[in-house]
Amino acid sequence: MTTITPLSGVIPPVCTPLTPDREVDVPSLLRLVDHLVAGGVHGLFVLGSSSEAAYLTDGQRRLVVESVTAHVGGRLPVLAGAIDMTTPRVLDHVASVTAAGADGVVVTAPFYARTHPAEIARHYRAVAAASPVPVVAYDIPVAVHTKLPADVVLKLAADGVLAGLKDSSGDLAAFRKVVTGARGQGISGFSVLTGSELIVDSALAAGADGAVPGLANVDPHGYVRLHDLCRSGDWDGARAEQERLCALFGMVTVADPARMGPGSSALGAFKAALHLRGVIDCPATAEPQVPLEQDEVARVGKYLAAAGLH
Amino acid sequence: MTTITPLSGVIPPVCTPLTPDREVDVPSLLRLVDHLVAGGVHGLFVLGSSSEAAYLTDGQRRLVVESVTAHVGGRLPVLAGAIDMTTPRVLDHVASVTAAGADGVVVTAPFYARTHPAEIARHYRAVAAASPVPVVAYDIPVAVHTKLPADVVLKLAADGVLAGLKDSSGDLAAFRKVVTGARGQGISGFSVLTGSELIVDSALAAGADGAVPGLANVDPHGYVRLHDLCRSGDWDGARAEQERLCALFGMVTVADPARMGPGSSALGAFKAALHLRGVIDCPATAEPQVPLEQDEVARVGKYLAAAGLH
Amino acid sequence: MTTITPLSGVIPPVCTPLTPDREVDVPSLLRLVDHLVAGGVHGLFVLGSSSEAAYLTDGQRRLVVESVTAHVGGRLPVLAGAIDMTTPRVLDHVASVTAAGADGVVVTAPFYARTHPAEIARHYRAVAAASPVPVVAYDIPVAVHTKLPADVVLKLAADGVLAGLKDSSGDLAAFRKVVTGARGQGISGFSVLTGSELIVDSALAAGADGAVPGLANVDPHGYVRLHDLCRSGDWDGARAEQERLCALFGMVTVADPARMGPGSSALGAFKAALHLRGVIDCPATAEPQVPLEQDEVARVGKYLAAAGLH
Amino acid sequence: MTTITPLSGVIPPVCTPLTPDREVDVPSLLRLVDHLVAGGVHGLFVLGSSSEAAYLTDGQRRLVVESVTAHVGGRLPVLAGAIDMTTPRVLDHVASVTAAGADGVVVTAPFYARTHPAEIARHYRAVAAASPVPVVAYDIPVAVHTKLPADVVLKLAADGVLAGLKDSSGDLAAFRKVVTGARGQGISGFSVLTGSELIVDSALAAGADGAVPGLANVDPHGYVRLHDLCRSGDWDGARAEQERLCALFGMVTVADPARMGPGSSALGAFKAALHLRGVIDCPATAEPQVPLEQDEVARVGKYLAAAGLH
Repeated sequence: MTTITPLSGVIPPVCTPLTPDREVDVPSLLRLVDHLVAGGVHGLFVLGSSSEAAYLTDGQRRLVVESVTAHVGGRLPVLAGAIDMTTPRVLDHVASVTAAGADGVVVTAPFYARTHPAEIARHYRAVAAASPVPVVAYDIPVAVHTKLPADVVLKLAADGVLAGLKDSSGDLAAFRKVVTGARGQGISGFSVLTGSELIVDSALAAGADGAVPGLANVDPHGYVRLHDLCRSGDWDGARAEQERLCALFGMVTVADPARMGPGSSALGAFKAALHLRGVIDCPATAEPQVPLEQDEVARVGKYLAAAGLH
Repeated sequence: MTTITPLSGVIPPVCTPLTPDREVDVPSLLRLVDHLVAGGVHGLFVLGSSSEAAYLTDGQRRLVVESVTAHVGGRLPVLAGAIDMTTPRVLDHVASVTAAGADGVVVTAPFYARTHPAEIARHYRAVAAASPVPVVAYDIPVAVHTKLPADVVLKLAADGVLAGLKDSSGDLAAFRKVVTGARGQGISGFSVLTGSELIVDSALAAGADGAVPGLANVDPHGYVRLHDLCRSGDWDGARAEQERLCALFGMVTVADPARMGPGSSALGAFKAALHLRGVIDCPATAEPQVPLEQDEVARVGKYLAAAGLH
Repeated sequence: MTTITPLSGVIPPVCTPLTPDREVDVPSLLRLVDHLVAGGVHGLFVLGSSSEAAYLTDGQRRLVVESVTAHVGGRLPVLAGAIDMTTPRVLDHVASVTAAGADGVVVTAPFYARTHPAEIARHYRAVAAASPVPVVAYDIPVAVHTKLPADVVLKLAADGVLAGLKDSSGDLAAFRKVVTGARGQGISGFSVLTGSELIVDSALAAGADGAVPGLANVDPHGYVRLHDLCRSGDWDGARAEQERLCALFGMVTVADPARMGPGSSALGAFKAALHLRGVIDCPATAEPQVPLEQDEVARVGKYLAAAGLH
Repeated sequence: MTTITPLSGVIPPVCTPLTPDREVDVPSLLRLVDHLVAGGVHGLFVLGSSSEAAYLTDGQRRLVVESVTAHVGGRLPVLAGAIDMTTPRVLDHVASVTAAGADGVVVTAPFYARTHPAEIARHYRAVAAASPVPVVAYDIPVAVHTKLPADVVLKLAADGVLAGLKDSSGDLAAFRKVVTGARGQGISGFSVLTGSELIVDSALAAGADGAVPGLANVDPHGYVRLHDLCRSGDWDGARAEQERLCALFGMVTVADPARMGPGSSALGAFKAALHLRGVIDCPATAEPQVPLEQDEVARVGKYLAAAGLH
């Protein structure tokens, strides 16, 4: 097992390529991993939201983790999502993904069930107590409809329950509160990662340890370059690279909002881009997402071209 | 297999008794089923929200369905929830609960993943195509953060995709739109059930086929009596009985909201009441719910006494 | 001044007819009042949400109240909305509408400013202390983004602060809690009115004192008939009449949702219907609402015809 | 009239000191203005959310603008909020505040009334057409429950309707879209200002023209210093100053959330701090806000001390 602490750098949430009949396309998945590793990323996060974890069966989830950890062979850390509604179900996923070789698990607040800060804390404590690997909290209000309170996260970090936070809330002010709180309290072994692909430079400038950008599937080199510019203190260069990536991210809106939701559009665009770039064999997304049409895919191609990607 | 169509009457979402170490307490579960059957209910719904389905592992879910269907032996229909985030995961649950003997499945809109009316329709069509038993749509915005649009439900009903709707939205105007729409369009084999325990009389008066009240675990006789009063057109008697049940429902607020969420409080109260009534052996709720304290349980007892239950 | 307590029966929120250049069309307004009085309504509510109060300047608001109270001359009670963000601004409106002759004021929870149950209570106490006429609480979460808690309303009613509740939340279970709470606590001089035009029969069956249905502008006779059927205990007849009105209410969706919001569509449809029925001279709605197009108006006409109105 | 274009730098939303009986305390207001000017701010924004505009009567609003513009005498630009529900009411405020000397007006999306992007655009076009001074859009979803779409803002800016955006949404990714969109399209005479006091450094690094931080009432020198550090490219120094200000901002949580809402707590803390610093005579906030208690005020004092303010 690879030590994941401290987590830092660019850790893409790895897309899950599917075959036309919606099975996991392992060869494409491994080519995608190679593409990311060649781009210089510092870790991998499988079974996240951009991985369509919510759409994968338990069998498919296991296959993804086994395939990726075996292929990576410890060269870089592999985190795995254990995305489910409540503690008992999450614990089953933790057991499954760690048996399959994951070096850390990423866990959201409870969802579907109505929750409460006291129950969120209880959830993470129970998961961490049973997990053989470090636990990273995943703050994603758009999916779970709860924002992880900064004070809850900091208390859990101080108590050694959490090894990190992946913040996909888009709320930089709250993110900063965790970053400075962890520093101010001298909490060690706790990493703060942003999941917002459009403000990675701001998050790193504010003290983040790293980023988990879905768009890094499409352009890992860009995010690694952005990370390096930030680390070297070249903030003007970082801003320019971030703005290029923001423009590229525009691809998530290629679809007609009367025809599908924003998730179908975004994941469809990422996969279309990976297909156009020759990384994966088939751009299919899981059911019940609506597929992109040809003109929408063509628009994805224009975003790639405008960003200098072919 | 028992034919579930047309679904009607009182169909409680059956609580899932747990042992102190949070395993399914099968003897208590079967006593609870007997208690409900003795109360005169017309069907059972296992693995719903009041059943803590969101908290049960796949193994526990299967055990619940197998135990209940075997015990009931076809005396009345058993619906089972197939509660998960998206189509592929729901299909695995459908396969599991129908193998375990469920006569129908109850399925929500996709959650966690952001959704869209077109994707909701696609979801139900795919589930129904693969399900060996009828599919009932479960409208529960408080859990999935989407309201099932009445026109989508009616189209799916007209196309034979849905055998029913369980509406836990609390929105009686929208509910009525489905009731009158189904009648107006002459859709047959489609039942409209309310999941709101506080307005069962109103829903039946508006034309509902039945009700799925969580509180019926505690007082099945009351809900059957309420149903019978409505069916006989004794609306004054129905209102009085409904108001008695509304007062009893007050038990869901026994807990201090600074200490736990409304779900922990409500499910904790239902189970405390079943324990106080001698139906189940242990009032434990699943993790990470916060347990009720003794004074809160005592207050549950007062609600029972005030409603004439001992 | 007309005594408004106890408020009961059908009390339409009176639409505010405008001229083509968006001034209050007083002759049309008075014709609308005559149309409502001829329909048998029991009171009038000016400056509510269906009156476009949010769109009327202070001068226009005053003109509406003065015109209507002078025209009605005490024949039936006239309530006026005092719709604004916080206590000091509401108090100015209370002073203005009561100077103009209103018999009661209707007041929402604070909005724009973030609020809290303690502040809502404080708000109503301050307004009632300064108001020369009775105060009715207006529960309209779709506008103010807060639900009035039933326990807060009941405490204020018990303390003589509130003379009534107009509930436009659509939440019949919470509405019922206020109805039965007021009865159970023996609170007198407090009326509970539903603002949901689609469940007036259900609300009256549950014990409501009356209804404030926007659609009663278009069909006052229908709502008075519905009210009378409920009062006489003819619930089958009531349901049939309510269903006719529900079908008529479908007019609120005539507009293309890509072109305008639901408010523009609903208020545009009500005014188009009043124009088609010959009650008002011009169907214009206030800025920045988007006007209906001709085919949308034609569809309003079809709803009228289907409901037997010409 | 002072030309406000291009708006840039630190432009505090000026608190409105009140007397114990809740009238505008003009001498304290002018002392506060002097305090801000002495701190080096680049403009003033009266009648914003931090000014309690939602709580001020029309007379009080007029008095504030007249007092401040007369006192400032053109030394720096004075923007005034024209905060109301819809176009006709906003236009009345625009007329009032510009008659009182405001150099620009700040206008939110419609609220209370349900709105739509097409109606938001229509609203700003109508306001700008009638306003004698430039119009700044105010994006404050926490108050109006709508997020101004970036594409709508950019189109209005390109058409010369808007002179600026004050973004209090906290969504830096969307903010950045406006910043880079305006630059990319070569839109001139349009300023982008952040209203988020906790990420001013990030916003300026991303290309913002300035900031409108409520906390600058308490510590104008700090925000001017932060601004200057950003402008000089000293991002490490900026981050340290920003973090000091973030710690100071912690004062907004001094109150018990069971006793009042977050608005009462935050505005109460700002005014308590201004009172403790000797700038204003009385810390009263407007009704129906709940006042801070003595121990809460004492805690505000500790935040001041920890930030080096006495």
